[in-house]
Amino acid sequence: MPILYDYPRSRNGYKARLVASHLGLPLQVVTTDLMAGESRQADFLAKNAAGKVPVLELEDGTCLPESNAIALFLAEGSALLPDAKLERAQVLRWMFFEQSQLLPNIGLARMLKITGRDTQRPDVYAQRVEAAQDALSALERHFAGNDWAALGRFTVADIVLYAYSSVVEEAGIDTAPYPAFVAWRRRVESLPAHIPPDWGFAA
Amino acid sequence: MPILYDYPRSRNGYKARLVASHLGLPLQVVTTDLMAGESRQADFLAKNAAGKVPVLELEDGTCLPESNAIALFLAEGSALLPDAKLERAQVLRWMFFEQSQLLPNIGLARMLKITGRDTQRPDVYAQRVEAAQDALSALERHFAGNDWAALGRFTVADIVLYAYSSVVEEAGIDTAPYPAFVAWRRRVESLPAHIPPDWGFAA
Repeated sequence: MPILYDYPRSRNGYKARLVASHLGLPLQVVTTDLMAGESRQADFLAKNAAGKVPVLELEDGTCLPESNAIALFLAEGSALLPDAKLERAQVLRWMFFEQSQLLPNIGLARMLKITGRDTQRPDVYAQRVEAAQDALSALERHFAGNDWAALGRFTVADIVLYAYSSVVEEAGIDTAPYPAFVAWRRRVESLPAHIPPDWGFAA
Repeated sequence: MPILYDYPRSRNGYKARLVASHLGLPLQVVTTDLMAGESRQADFLAKNAAGKVPVLELEDGTCLPESNAIALFLAEGSALLPDAKLERAQVLRWMFFEQSQLLPNIGLARMLKITGRDTQRPDVYAQRVEAAQDALSALERHFAGNDWAALGRFTVADIVLYAYSSVVEEAGIDTAPYPAFVAWRRRVESLPAHIPPDWGFAA
């Protein structure tokens, strides 16, 4: 069974666990304690030079880092990821948007907020919130005319967009200006295979 | 011929033009004047809800935003992008790393630096430089033992990583601590089909 090195508070690892739940794939979740520095130790850096979770370790020992690469790898050949070149590109488009415009801004704003450092680095926090709001405005424009991220149906793009979309409020950002975005988030949460963010970790 | 909406100073559009050069693909480059706000006007937002270049417009009018989705779309079926599921995932891994850890940090630090706003928002600039250095350290660890990003050969992952790697100094960041990274950058630049960043724009 593949191993997923992950940390409960990370929403990047959540993406892989959501794909696994939607597709019924087995996955053994192993906690990498980020707070204890485990992801920057030599044995972990050999799995991922970037020193970050998640990493998927296959049965032959091959390691695949990066949440969206893992999500795509798990989704290959399923209804979550089309084969046709242009359809695939439209799914990937939102997965790259997520990485450059949603995750870094919501992720860092949330990290500063929940550790109480938003008041120590107010301009860093403010700039991340501005950029996150710009990304949320893009999603609002899209979801005002579309039920799903791509192709008019639920795909792996919705899963990866959902992960950090689910913690906008934890970053201290009001979602009231983004009603179509909030409605899409509820659509994702209402799917039968949806799971909470701590799913897969030992109790 | 497909149209690439792009802006000379953007290194994201450069990725698509590099792929086109390496594969000998025709591409008509149309300038979207970011400084004049053209990417946030209604006609452009209809092409990309995120209001950013590049956008690839196909002959049937279909629009594909996001530099890495465009790069992958253009590279499909070529030697720059493998078909096998795990090999493809190893290429994508570095393309997602580029989007979340390299581009946002080098990109914003560079933008602040070249517009002289690094001294107006010193903590924002400092945080982006710290994060960029962390990403460069990851690349240094990787290229210390590998000539190329993935699979031991030049792929579309090297192209997308190169784009913002080529402007580290413009962001005010010293590359002296990253000799293996600098050597990889020179390997990319020495390929016969390599082009300068303003290639494709009318003189």
